[in-house]
Parts: sequence; structure tokens; C-alpha cells
Amino acid sequence: MTQKQRSVAIIEVAPRDGLQNEKVMVSTEDKISLVERSFTAGFRHVEAVSFANPKRVPQMADAEGVMAGLAPRYADRNLIGLALNARGAERAVAAKCSQINYVVVASETFANRNQNASVADLVNGTRDVAAIARAAGLPMSISLATSFGCPFDGEVSVERVMGIVEELLKSDPFDIGFADTIGCAVPPQVTEMLARARALSTSIKWRCHFHDTRNTGVANAIAAVEAGVDFLDASTGGVGGCPFAPAATGNVATEDLVYVFNRMGIETGLDIDTLLDTSRWLSGVLGKPLPSALGRAGVFPARAA
Amino acid sequence: MTQKQRSVAIIEVAPRDGLQNEKVMVSTEDKISLVERSFTAGFRHVEAVSFANPKRVPQMADAEGVMAGLAPRYADRNLIGLALNARGAERAVAAKCSQINYVVVASETFANRNQNASVADLVNGTRDVAAIARAAGLPMSISLATSFGCPFDGEVSVERVMGIVEELLKSDPFDIGFADTIGCAVPPQVTEMLARARALSTSIKWRCHFHDTRNTGVANAIAAVEAGVDFLDASTGGVGGCPFAPAATGNVATEDLVYVFNRMGIETGLDIDTLLDTSRWLSGVLGKPLPSALGRAGVFPARAA
Repeated sequence: MTQKQRSVAIIEVAPRDGLQNEKVMVSTEDKISLVERSFTAGFRHVEAVSFANPKRVPQMADAEGVMAGLAPRYADRNLIGLALNARGAERAVAAKCSQINYVVVASETFANRNQNASVADLVNGTRDVAAIARAAGLPMSISLATSFGCPFDGEVSVERVMGIVEELLKSDPFDIGFADTIGCAVPPQVTEMLARARALSTSIKWRCHFHDTRNTGVANAIAAVEAGVDFLDASTGGVGGCPFAPAATGNVATEDLVYVFNRMGIETGLDIDTLLDTSRWLSGVLGKPLPSALGRAGVFPARAA
Repeated sequence: MTQKQRSVAIIEVAPRDGLQNEKVMVSTEDKISLVERSFTAGFRHVEAVSFANPKRVPQMADAEGVMAGLAPRYADRNLIGLALNARGAERAVAAKCSQINYVVVASETFANRNQNASVADLVNGTRDVAAIARAAGLPMSISLATSFGCPFDGEVSVERVMGIVEELLKSDPFDIGFADTIGCAVPPQVTEMLARARALSTSIKWRCHFHDTRNTGVANAIAAVEAGVDFLDASTGGVGGCPFAPAATGNVATEDLVYVFNRMGIETGLDIDTLLDTSRWLSGVLGKPLPSALGRAGVFPARAA
């Protein structure tokens, strides 16, 4: 057994990365309830909203309304808002997010198709978002999409990713997260990525964001913890889907990670029964079964009746 | 990276453990075709049939017919037959199986409910099956069900499992397989189990059989390879289901393992495109989507069009 690290902080991303990819339009009230339930389960960090263009991402159009229902009541928790540009960052500040998460893409074709920008444009945009965050006294995190592979360009080398990370570090982010956007990563990639990243900086935090598209999400998350990752993104119920494969699962399910971590003695501070309650409730809100394995199978050992 | 072992032999169990748990009655012809397709994909070892009581397991009632269609043509491949007792072992010999797999259960309540026998009865039965196999010049493997946990008794200690293994070793089996019957295992259990097992014997082979019920199948399989396991059971398409949870996946999908192993540089000798073809074909035979992730998402990088 090589577990050096016995705890990891999970960031709940269902309210943003999860719901953003669902067809059902979830009410502002239910979005607020999802974040409240996440806090009840023990999360300190929730990616609550996205300040994307409402015309492009209508599911997130009520970001200000969601934050208005949360920010005044949860000053002690981290309410993260996603921003794709300076305009989004300004909205996040105005809406009283406590952290801004900016997105850079590691592969050129995905950057072009997904954000209509070059990788260089996105890297340059970091400075503007960082300035807005700094002026507001907020930490900025950066998610680096397609870090482990691109649906269009194929393999993305760790050298390429590290080259981008070196640029991003100049903006002094709170954390950088390696996102396996299409769920193609395998554990040795994760191990190498985090080792190389920590060789570049031990002062910032490192985060990973895994999708379970090819059934490697749990194995990758374990590898990340063993490599000393600071944060893991995960989504209650595994909500998120995958736009180009209807039946494929999206974000790795929070409860699936907490199950395996609990049984490995890795602390998350999260209550799995509350997570499973939330997962059932969210399944009702979305009107469909959710992909999490624990949601179907339940914990082991089974709870006494 | 801690991969000491760069190859593992996968045993295809879809024809037996997979189909046995499906509601659809698959024709003898299609069962034979599934085994043929598995050999085409590169498997050396296939668990082809079960010699259970046809009244209890009607899906396997045509075991002799399946073997009659295979044994004369595949003298160079390993056609494994499952036997629950001496009667089954005699049928396996008569049907020209090249290996007999006998099942022992590690937990008392599961043994009682599933096989109407005590653990001691099943351990004692090993000697009879071993004698039949030896007389026929066939290797005997043993699958030890509920090695990592029992749906009724809960936790099963590694000490208890090792105590049973010590008894089983007296029959000099070719291999012993630790089965995670209800898919509750986590990687450190696998690591410890195999380390303890190898301390008991380095002359026999060790095998693991994982179910993906709680999304830990791939992580457990990786842990097993890293711990030097000789064989892994897996099921094309992830067929097998789970009798007490309709939507839950059963055996870990062969193609999901081969995807992650390919990208980790762990040799299996299997062709993933053939596996995916077989998975699609089997989905048609069973008339439903199969749980494998690779079957939905496809390989990465995507094949050139």
C-alpha cells in the first residue's frame, strides 16, 4: 500500500458542470437547494454557478439569482463561480462569489471549437481574470481542459500541458486543475502530471477533474490522491452527461469517490448517506436515473435496517 | 509509477458468469459464437459453461451442447467449465473441458443461501472435485466467492479468507481466484489479499474476479496487476448484471480493462476492436445496451475514419 496522503478535499461541481450539461432546465430554487444540500453533506467548496453567455449556456442564465440566494448565508463556505473571460469574472465578483474559476484549454482544436479562441488567447486571458480577482481580494483557480487528451487533436503531451502551466503560474493562481474533459486518462498519466506539476510549484494547490466516460474516473482519483493532489472535483450522482455520447457518464460521481475513499481510510469530511439522499433527490429533479454506481448499489456494508 | 508487472492474462467469463445472470435465454449456437469471437479477440482462456443443476440454472442447461461445438476445434485453447460439486466435475470431464473451476464461498450465510451448504462442506468438496480433475489429467481452479465482503454477513476478514485458502491449497489447485461477488472491494484489500496469498504459496497461480457494482472494478484490477496477479476474470460488455439491483453493472467489462491496460502499457494479448465488435454483437443478442463504458464511449484516441 502506497497511500501517503490520508485526506483529500472534494469540490462539488454538480451545480455547475453537472447541471450545465443536462437538458432539463433546473429552477433557481432547486439549484440553491442542491448547494445547500452539498454544504449539509460537509463540502467546504462548491462550484455553484457559471457566468457564461446566457445565450450559449441557458442552463446557467440565473447565476446571479442562485448566488443571491446563497452568498448572504454562507460566508464561511467557498462558493466558486466559473468565468470564461473578464466579463464573466466581473459578474462573479458582483454576485459575491468567493472564488473565480477560469478555464484554459490545452489543445488547439478544442479551444477553437468550444470557446472560439486559440490556446494563446485563453492563456493571455488569465491575466485579465487574475487582475479582476486580485482587485476583489478573491482567489482565482484555473481549470485546464483536455489536459489528458482531446476529442479532436487526440493525444496531448504532458510537455505541452506543462508549457501552458508555466505560463499560467505567472498569474499566481490559487490552484490549477487538470481536467480530463473527455474521460480518457489513465492513472500513470495522472501520477506523472502531478509529479511534473509539483516540480514546477509547491506553493499553489493542484486539483484534478475526472470524467468517468471510460470507467477510469475512480482509478484516476485514487492515483491523484496517492500523488498528493490537493483537490478533486466530483459531481453528486455523476450528473453532467456527455454531449457526444448520450449514455456515457460524465463527471465522476462524488458518492462513488467517497465510498472508495472511506473504505481506504482517506478522509473527505463528507457524509455518504447525505450524498446518497442528495443523489436521489437530484434524480427526481432531473427526472431520470443518475449514473453513480453507489446510487444504484448502496453502500457496503449495508446499513442496519 | 509502480507497475512492476507489464502483462496479465484475462479470462473471458461472459459465456458463463455473464449469460448465467441474464434473463434472455441465449441459443447454444450464439453461446458457441461468443466463445469463438473471444478466441478471435486473442483469449487463451474462456470460462465457457457451467455444469450446475439445469433446474436451478436453466441458462446453462445446454453446457454439453456448447462444449460439443467447441472442444473438437479448440484443442489449443483453455475451455473452462464451472462445477459446483463432484457431479458437475464429472460432467465437465465428460464434456471435454480442459479445466474445471470449482466454487467455494468465504462467508457462511452466502454459502448457505446460494449453495445450500456450509463453508466447511464446500471446502471438503474440493477434495472430491480435485480427485476427479486429477484422474482426468485436468487442472482445477477454485473461485472463492465473497472474498472481499458478503451481502449478508458484511465484512469478511482477510484472516478468514487466508484460513480457507490454506485448506484449499491442500488439494493442490492450479489457481485460486478471489471473487468480489458483490463488488464491494477497494484496492488496498486487493493488494493485501494478494500479498498474503503469495506468502502462502508461490507455486500456484492467483486470480481475481471483480464486479463493477460500486465503480471500483477497474481500480481493483489495476491494483491486482500491480500486486502481481496471474489472471483476471472479466466479461465482454460487462454482462452479468446483478440479481438484486437491475441497473447495476456486473462483472467488470473486458474492454474497459483492456482500454486502461493498453494505455498503461500492460499487455493482455487482446484486440480491443474485436472485443468492441463482440460487445456490440452481444448487445444485439441480449436485446439491450450493455454496461461497458468503452462500448458507449469508444476508444481514445478515436480510430481514423
